[in-house]
This record gives sequence, C-alpha cells and structure tokens, in this order.
Amino acid sequence: MHKSLDVIFKPQSVAVIGASTRPGSLGRNLFDKMLAADFNGPIYPVHPAAKYVHSVKAYPTILEVPGAVDLAVIVVPRDQVLPTVEQCAQKGVKGLVVITAGFKETGADGAAREQALAEIIKARNMRMVGPNCMGVMCTDPQVRLDATFAGAYPPTGKIAFASQSGALGVTILDYAGSLNLGVSMFVSLGNKTDISGNDLLEYWKEDESAGVILMYLESFGNPRKFVQLAREVSRRKPIVIVKSGRTEGGARAVSSHTGAIAGTDLAYDALFTQCGVLRANTIEEMFDFAMGLANQPLPRGDRVAIVTNAGGPAIMATDACESLGLRLAQFAPETRQRLRARLLPEASVANPVDLLPAANEDDYQFTLEQILQDVNVDALIVISVPPISADAIKVAQRISAVAEKSDKTVLGCFMGVKGLASAAELQKQAVPAFSFPESAARALAAMVRYAQWRQRKTGDFPAFAVRREVAAEIIAGAKKSGREQLTDWEAFQILTAYGIPSVGTKICRHLDEILEAAHQLGYPVVLKVSSPEVIHKSEIGGVQLDLRSDVDLGQAYHKLIVRLQAAGIPPERVQFLVQHMVEGGREVLLGINAIPAFGAVIAFGLGGIYVEALQDLALRVTPLTAQDAEDMVESIRGLAILQGVRGEKPVAFSKLHETILRISQLAQDFPEIGEMDINPFLLFHEPEQCAAADARIRISA
Amino acid sequence: MHKSLDVIFKPQSVAVIGASTRPGSLGRNLFDKMLAADFNGPIYPVHPAAKYVHSVKAYPTILEVPGAVDLAVIVVPRDQVLPTVEQCAQKGVKGLVVITAGFKETGADGAAREQALAEIIKARNMRMVGPNCMGVMCTDPQVRLDATFAGAYPPTGKIAFASQSGALGVTILDYAGSLNLGVSMFVSLGNKTDISGNDLLEYWKEDESAGVILMYLESFGNPRKFVQLAREVSRRKPIVIVKSGRTEGGARAVSSHTGAIAGTDLAYDALFTQCGVLRANTIEEMFDFAMGLANQPLPRGDRVAIVTNAGGPAIMATDACESLGLRLAQFAPETRQRLRARLLPEASVANPVDLLPAANEDDYQFTLEQILQDVNVDALIVISVPPISADAIKVAQRISAVAEKSDKTVLGCFMGVKGLASAAELQKQAVPAFSFPESAARALAAMVRYAQWRQRKTGDFPAFAVRREVAAEIIAGAKKSGREQLTDWEAFQILTAYGIPSVGTKICRHLDEILEAAHQLGYPVVLKVSSPEVIHKSEIGGVQLDLRSDVDLGQAYHKLIVRLQAAGIPPERVQFLVQHMVEGGREVLLGINAIPAFGAVIAFGLGGIYVEALQDLALRVTPLTAQDAEDMVESIRGLAILQGVRGEKPVAFSKLHETILRISQLAQDFPEIGEMDINPFLLFHEPEQCAAADARIRISA
Repeated sequence: MHKSLDVIFKPQSVAVIGASTRPGSLGRNLFDKMLAADFNGPIYPVHPAAKYVHSVKAYPTILEVPGAVDLAVIVVPRDQVLPTVEQCAQKGVKGLVVITAGFKETGADGAAREQALAEIIKARNMRMVGPNCMGVMCTDPQVRLDATFAGAYPPTGKIAFASQSGALGVTILDYAGSLNLGVSMFVSLGNKTDISGNDLLEYWKEDESAGVILMYLESFGNPRKFVQLAREVSRRKPIVIVKSGRTEGGARAVSSHTGAIAGTDLAYDALFTQCGVLRANTIEEMFDFAMGLANQPLPRGDRVAIVTNAGGPAIMATDACESLGLRLAQFAPETRQRLRARLLPEASVANPVDLLPAANEDDYQFTLEQILQDVNVDALIVISVPPISADAIKVAQRISAVAEKSDKTVLGCFMGVKGLASAAELQKQAVPAFSFPESAARALAAMVRYAQWRQRKTGDFPAFAVRREVAAEIIAGAKKSGREQLTDWEAFQILTAYGIPSVGTKICRHLDEILEAAHQLGYPVVLKVSSPEVIHKSEIGGVQLDLRSDVDLGQAYHKLIVRLQAAGIPPERVQFLVQHMVEGGREVLLGINAIPAFGAVIAFGLGGIYVEALQDLALRVTPLTAQDAEDMVESIRGLAILQGVRGEKPVAFSKLHETILRISQLAQDFPEIGEMDINPFLLFHEPEQCAAADARIRISA
Repeated sequence: MHKSLDVIFKPQSVAVIGASTRPGSLGRNLFDKMLAADFNGPIYPVHPAAKYVHSVKAYPTILEVPGAVDLAVIVVPRDQVLPTVEQCAQKGVKGLVVITAGFKETGADGAAREQALAEIIKARNMRMVGPNCMGVMCTDPQVRLDATFAGAYPPTGKIAFASQSGALGVTILDYAGSLNLGVSMFVSLGNKTDISGNDLLEYWKEDESAGVILMYLESFGNPRKFVQLAREVSRRKPIVIVKSGRTEGGARAVSSHTGAIAGTDLAYDALFTQCGVLRANTIEEMFDFAMGLANQPLPRGDRVAIVTNAGGPAIMATDACESLGLRLAQFAPETRQRLRARLLPEASVANPVDLLPAANEDDYQFTLEQILQDVNVDALIVISVPPISADAIKVAQRISAVAEKSDKTVLGCFMGVKGLASAAELQKQAVPAFSFPESAARALAAMVRYAQWRQRKTGDFPAFAVRREVAAEIIAGAKKSGREQLTDWEAFQILTAYGIPSVGTKICRHLDEILEAAHQLGYPVVLKVSSPEVIHKSEIGGVQLDLRSDVDLGQAYHKLIVRLQAAGIPPERVQFLVQHMVEGGREVLLGINAIPAFGAVIAFGLGGIYVEALQDLALRVTPLTAQDAEDMVESIRGLAILQGVRGEKPVAFSKLHETILRISQLAQDFPEIGEMDINPFLLFHEPEQCAAADARIRISA
C-alpha cells in the first residue's frame, strides 16, 4: 500500500492547479518555490486564463496538459476543489496535495464537502495529502520537490517530518535550517482526510532516506494501529513526537482548531512508552532530541563523561544529567593518570574534567581521546565557553575530528552568542552543538532511553490457557438480561476462568449454606450481599467484616436481612458471598478502562486512599508484552512500598506481572468490557497468597 | 555598610594594577575594555616597567599615581597580590577587584594566601570583589565602568547580575545583549572572600538602577542572613536565582570547583519559596523570567488570554499555561461579540483567539485592544508566526503600541528564524519576544507567582506563651548527663511545655502505678518501655499495643519484664509509659532538622509507609511566618488526604498550622535541638482531638 505514496513524494511530473500570476498570492508563491527548488521533472501550471506563469507555459485545465502527471497540487478556491479533483481523476493523476482550506475545520458544510472529497479519492484510487495544509517537500537530490507556499527549503538530511499544524511545520523547517539539521521530507498533514501520520510511518519505515522521524500531532485517528506500526518502526529508526492538547484547555483549543477531539493524555504517554516513541514536551525539546539522534551513534549505556573549560556550565550539566537519570562515568585510574600528567595542576581530572579557561585545542583533543577510549564511558558532553587565548573555531574542529574517529556519542555545548560560529563549525562535522548544557543532557537522556528500548527483547504477547467460554457465557447472560453491571460473583467467576486468583469465595442463599461455606473457607470471614439490585453494597451496609465465629456470622446474617427488608428488597431474591478475610498484604489496584479509539487500557497502582489522592497510576494500552507489564509496575512512584520498606520482603512481582498479562488477555478477548476494577488485589511475598479481594466489571452498551 | 560598595561600583578613579602592553593578555584586555567603555574618570595603568599602556601614561606602582584612587583592579601574578594590596592600603584605596586566581580553589597553600588577604582587607577597612573572578561592570551613564577581561559591554538597563561562575557570567552578558536585555551592574563573585551575594542584595536593595536581581550561585555562605535580606528585597524588586549543584554529582562538581560545599537542595527550595525568590532551573529559564520581569508590569492575577495567527503554537501555549497553574481567561460576552463582528467567520473568538494566517496588523491591534480592556483578563500572550500577507515588523509595532497603553502584562512569541527581526522590533518597545510559546508561559507563571507573593501580607513570626524554662531544664539535664537522646517522656514534657498537644501519657515504674494510669487514661492503652538504655524500643519488642483490660495490661507488663531481663537490662532501672491508644485520624510527620549553615529546618509530611516511600515532604527554614506554615501544608502532594477523601470531613488545619508554628518557636529557642521527630502526629476534624502519639528529640553535641 505505501508504495502508492511515491506518486506524491517522488513524482516525475507535477501540475500546480491554481498557479497564479499575482505575486504574493499562495498560488504564485507555491509555483515559484517549486521552480526555485529545481524539481527534477516538468512542472505544469494550470490557470483558467493565463498563457504562462513565471515564464512557464500554462494550461487552462489539467486535461489539456500534455503527457502524464503524477502529482497535482491544488490551490483553487474551495468550491472548485471537487470538480478539479474529478478532472485529475480523468487525467489519470494518482497523487494529490490539496492546499485549499474550508473543509471540516469550518463546520457542517465544510465537513460535507470533505466527505464528498474523501469519496472521490477512494473511488478513483488516488492518494491525497490535505486538504487545509501547507504542502509537502522531498529533498532527495533525484526529486527536489518543494510543494509548499511558505518556509525555507532545508538542507538535505535524515529528518522526515510530519506536522498537523502547517504554520508550526513551516516554522520548524526554518529552525531546522538554522541548526544545520538536514531534512529528507516534510509533510503538512492538514485535515488528514486520506493520508495520516500512520500512513507516513508505514512509508518512512521502508524509506532509507528517513533516518529520524519527527511528528507534531494534535490528534490520532487510529491509536491502535499507531501502536502496532510504531513498535515496528522504532526497532529500525527513532520516532520523536510532540503531542499537543495535553491539558484540558489545550485539548479544547485543539478541538476548535482541527475538529479532532484530543484523547486522554496519560493514555498517550503510555502508548508512546510502549512503542519506543520519544515524546518531546516542546518544539525546543524535539529539536534537542533530533540533533542528537540525527548526528551521533546511539550510546551503549548511560555513563556520561563531561569535559569543560569552565566550572559553572559543567555543574549545570552534571545536575541535568543526574536529574534525568544518567550516571556520571567513573574513569579508569589510567585515564586519570594520563590526564594528570598532561593537564595543568589546577585542572580537575575527575569527572567532570575541568580544563580551565586557558585550555587550547590541543588540550581538548588530548583529553577527549583519553576519555573516549575509557571503557567506563558511554557518552561525552563537551562544553566550551569562548576561550580567552585559544581559537574557538579550532577547538570545534578538533572536537569534531576526535568525535569522528569514535563510535561513542559525543555532544557539544558552545555557550554564548560568541559560541555560535564555533557551534556552526562543530555541526558541519555532525557533532551537535547545543547552546545550553541542559539541552545536551536532555538529548543524551532521550538517546539513552531509546537505545535501552532498542536493546530490549522484542517481547511477545503471552497467551495463557484460559476458560474463555465461561467468561463469554456470563457476559452473554448479562447482556441478555439487559444488565451493564455484573454481580461480584460473576466477576469472581470470570477472574477464576482467566486464572486470576481471588480470595476464597462462596455464593450462598440461606444461613445453613453460609455457615457451611465459612467452615470450608475458615474463619475469619466477610459476608456480603450479592444482588444485581444492590450495586453499591456499602449504601445499605451490605458488607460485614471480620466475622470470627458461627455466632458472629449468624448475627451478621440477620442484620443484613433486616437491612434488606428496610431497603425494600425481598431477601429471597438476594444471594450472599462468604469470603475468607485476608489480613495484611499490600493493596494494589488493577483495572481495565476502555478509552474510545485506544481500545482497552490496563491500569495499575497502589490501592487505598493514599494513592487515590496521590494519583500514582500506570497505564498501558492493550495488548501488553511481558516487558510492558514489568515496566508499568516499575514506573509507579510508590514502587518502594512493594519492594519492601522497613525491612520487609518484596511482594511476588512475577505473580503481579502474570496477573497484569492475564487481565490484558481478558480485555483483548472481550472488548465489551467497558470497565473492570480489582480493588484491592492483595500482594504478599508468597505468590500463592496473592489474590483479588473485590472485583467489579461493567459491560459497555 | 553597603554605601562603602560605591567605591567599587561607582568609583571616580580607577587604577589597573597589572595592566599589560601585550595584546591578548588578561591585563591588556582588561585595560582596553575599560578604556573602550569610556569610564567617567581617570584610569591609571600600573606596570613595573612600561611608560604607557594603550597610549595612557603608566606608573610603576600605585604609590606613584597622582591624586586619589577609589578602586584598584588587580591582575598581577598571585604571589604579588598581597604586597600589591598592602600598597593599595597605603595609598588609601578603599575598593578592590582582584582578578588573579590561585587562592582557596587551588588547595591548602592558596587557602592560606586567601586567609592572609582577607585579614589585610579587614584590617585596612577595604572592600573587595574576588579573588579568582572575572571582574565587575556598572553601566550607569555617570559611571560606565567595565572592569572585566572578557564579555560584551551590555546595553544599560534594569538587570543587576551576580555570578559565582565567571565564565558563565560573561556568557550570560553575551546573551543579555543579544536579547536586548539591559544590564545595570554585573559582578563576577569569584571566591567571595569579602563581598558576597548577601552584600550585593543589601546594596541593590537601595540602588534605584537595579530593577531585577539575577544571581548564579553555587554555594551560600550565610543562608540565614540571605533569608532575612531576600524577604525584604523581594518586597521591592524581584530576585531570580539559579542555584546549581542540585544533585549529588553536581554538588561534588561544585566542591572541586570553588571549594564550597553545596547544601541540601530541598532546603534551598524551601528557603527561596519563603522569601519570594524565583528559582530558575536553567540559565535559559533565568532569561525567560528576566525578560518578563524587566519589561512588563506584574500581572494582577493568573487569568491569561492567548492571541495567535496559527493554531498549533496556541495549543502549545495553552498546554504550557495550564500545566504551570495559570488559568485561561473566560472573556466577557461583549468581548466575544466585538471580536465576532470584526474577525473572519472561521476565526476562533474564544480563548485562545485564532486570527488565522491571513491576519494583518489591524486585526492584531483591534483584537488586543478588546482583550486588554476585558476585566476577566490579567495577562496576554500574543503569538505570531511569520504572516503570509502582512508585514511582520508592522505587526510587532502594533503589538508594542497597544501594550504600551495597557497596564496589563503582555508577552510576545514570534516563532521561527524569520520571526527574529520582528522579535527585535517588539523588544525595542519593552514587549519581550520569546521564540517558543512555552518560554512565554514559563515567564508569565513566574511573574504571577512573584506577584502573588508580593500581594500577601508580610506575615510576622507569631510568638506563643510557652514554658521555655521547662524545656531548658530538661535539655540542660540531658547535656549534663552526657545524653544526646532525650527519653520519650522528656520529649513529651517539652511538647507540653510548648503547647503541642500529645495523647494522654503517664510515666510509671510499677504495675500498680501502670494499672492506675490506665484507669485514669481509659482503655484501650499502649504500654511502652521508657529508658535511656532502650532507644529503639521495637528491637526488644518494648511496645505493647491495644491493651483493653487490666488482664491484658498485666500480661503485657510481665512480657516486657521478661524481655528486659533477656536483653540484660535490669527492670528496676526502667520506667514505663502508659498511653491512651487513639484510633483513626490521619497520621502526619512533624519534625525539626538542623542543617549546617541553614539552622533549623521544619519538616512536614504525611506519616506512614506510603509517604516514606513517596517522599512527600515539605521543608521550611526557621523562623516561620503564619503564611509559611499554611504554604508548607498546602504544598504536599497528598494534601487531598487531609482535606478529606471519600466524603470525610477535613482535618483541623488551623490546629496543624499552629502546631507547626509552635515547633518553629521551639526550634528557634533551642538551636541545640539537632533533630526532633513527631511521628505520628494524629489529625482529626476536631481540633482538640489532634495530638502527638510519639516523639523523639536528639540534642546536638
């Protein structure tokens, strides 16, 4: 399927429909820019009246254009878009870029127009970028396509960039050029009526020229497909995404902007983490990541060396590295000895290495060579404030020369406006030069995170032997009787069918059965009312805890009967759950939440009021790999509580991981589960003691 | 005292001792820069042999210089510094800037040299910046002093800037110039042998030309004095601080760099919060804050309006504002109506207002005028990506013109490299122009935080009537017997003396007294071994909980006797605490920690294992104002638990605040309290139920 996108990004002939003779107009800018980029094929301007546009012969419609046309770029007024596209179809054009705005972003009329456009595209087997976009670029020297009406044509390079905001996209191209960050392709996605971010991921996965994928997105059409695709693509090349609309207000702004509804931000975080995507919070951060990823090898580990000619920036780099989870490398004794023998006595030869302001290019070269060959070092941040006596350009050249010979990650930081010239020199040689030490640290931390993700085993989606039919029957039964909420007994049966342990539970009707159950389970027990009519048991006081004898249990039973009668519920329609009461253990929450477009999201967190208030929750989008399950457990702030505080033994983590994966399987098998809460699930050191103590399941209508 | 600093920053005559004839040397750079800045008075080069330096008559020593010299800038080799300073004293010079390095930063010899230097300065009643620094600047047109050997001379403006890192300071001056951010004074602090950050705060407090104080610091000599000073200064003008050495590694790097030991970072956070200081985490953030504070009025509230000509950046601005705690303003209906009547139908007139790419300078002007007169708006972020049809410079001029007429905060964001020219235009008119929407949001959030701090009542340090002599006697007794750890009974007595409630507690020796105590307190009770020999009661099982009758209590007593004997502790040397056992309530931790140089730091957090693992703790440096106590309670993540989850009533916050203030008073009265832990302090809805259930106090040696 993706091959068909070549007609858009690597066309051999292009028509610009709506090319204009009026300087400054979109149609003219577009045509002029395409011409200026020296497109490697004929460009045909289409204009209803003009004989030529910018000295190139024009045609009244696409149908008059001689020879084949791969790509039509459309900038006609919105009411002419549909007939124009029809003509393109007649002409046999397979690729479209529709710049024209006035579609779903403008309301109901526009949405209808967009729907009609989508139908033509589909019927005529065409592919389209837009509408309501700023165009596309491909810097491949064999192509040289600039089909945008604004923004600088960037240097050729590894960055493949898609933006859901045209203006931001063009702005970013500007910066990319100024940072000497080469671009392979740029796509302004517009309304994503046909070609979406997912289509581009698929295309760029196979495209050798795309080395680093950057995306600015405000919404996802199909997050489930994204997860699948991104997992595959991230194995080959890094994906960096800015997903805006993170906050409630931001999401409102998105929805008025492109008509798409922003999803839950936490779920996006989960989704990106799972598929190795680096999420950047700002455009600035996206550039930091991209400069590192596009220019330098991935670090083999997280041990950083810092070299500087000024103390202050090195301290700031150290602070930033450590707070981002990187470790400061401990040099081998030989490294320190060699540095000591050569550098000034006042220089610090421990990490960070301070060469002092008097350092020249030879000092930098010697020091970098020593450090890069130290096996305890995975990556290097080299800082330079404009030196007093040395030539900053020479320092930059030496740094580049040493970095080029090493397969370790080297990032530069040239401080100050005066550092800009030397920064440019450094970047020419593919050593990224940041203006602030924190940016270098941020880039490195992202590279380490991505490298670690790549090094991990792919992870399959474990399948456990379960009794799916048991769950299917219970769910079908509830649906049939029009119930959304399953009873707790039904919920426990489903858990059991999926191998999720629960505390000993029996369902009973009469007191004699209840007492018998208690004897089998062993005291102390809990007695609960179980009835579809009583969803919130606590409201009628329908739970009796810590019953330690037949007498206790009998009294509790009679108390419940009285309460049921008081609530107008005939006791004969009610059943009772008897549960062994488990004491101690750590309470956690395990759950399923169906989020529109994402599918089922698995939740894990500590139980109890503390965590409810502290919102310490990890989410993952199904299906989960074993690695996902481990990651989500490790990502909560309160992990230490499960590892054992005050000398306790850790909980049975492998049992917890398995339970999470079984829940993922349940969620996958039954997309109709809208919500499931196991709260608490009790964790102990002994795996066989771990068990669900309460469970609720809601079926979506 | 501060007036004497005028001889350094506003001298009428300067000598440069160590001025050099050799181009490129420090001594030559320094002299040339000072000359180039057109210092408003005579500059005397002092050189042992040269007849002149850069065409100015030179003198062999300071003693030969004709007429008075206010300030001597010293760049001689390190071994000549002391004799040179002696000569300066003879000459009657009162101000010194010592550039020369080779003092405490280089080890023991250097430290001795620095000590000798300090003694001369003190004895001769001189003031000194440095040694080991990059110099000072004062851009006052009446002064025009540039006594630095590197870095650009910045435009005159409001920023007073002190840096403990010379290189970083010079780099920052560079940026300041490029951002059109005017500077009033710059001080490279060096080793801070005489003049410290605190001295500058005191000086700048009264100095009209200093409108915004920026500091880059790696260590604090006297944090207690800083708190006092900064509280006063922040009432008049904002202080922005970058304090590096935040992480363990960073602190190590600091200590090898300037010989100062970095303190506890959390305590610094507390200290800055208390005195209205804005802490910036990076140099970049410091500039963001400074650009806002130096150019625009403080916002009256936190309601932000956003105006843009492109959707993407507005969404990012919204995300950033909301995640920084700012609120998006809700416009008055009239504002929306007026915008609707004028703007394109596709434009969004809700906040954020999207003028669409076609917007020109008239649209910006009209929209900004409407929004700035809306009473629901406190501040405005105006975003522009380079417009397609309009002139970006004109847009910038109109934004400036509207902003100038308003007393509300207006911040600009001009995206893209092409935005730089219009950004410069905007900044000329004192509207800061940021490159990214997040930077504008960060600056605004800092301004709001500072404005809120300024609006708060000053807050006094409440003094409660306490029985100080009771505590004094107990502490004296412990000291006398050589004990660091007070017994729990002693600790409870001190709490009582300071009006800090504790659960009913009695001290007893024999079983009959114990039973009598239990009857008075009421069952259930807790029985605890109390003896200086048993510090960790839990180790010998010395605490018996939930005793509900005389029988329970008697058994528990005998169990403890057996355990004491087993541990080799003669029971007759031991006393017992009987405590009423309080059930329910929220457990919090209250404590005192003496941190070197800071004095006593008060700690507050939720109790129990959850919070121990989650490290949810608030600190404040004594003395605390009532506002500090409220702030620290509000700042913990788990606040919701105290406010009441699942429909519970809130705890008695006023009682909690009062208790914190009483603890602060105790810490102030007895600096020898090295550590106090009240854990748990139990909080209830009813103030009179709140009480300490356990307390430990350690006296510092």
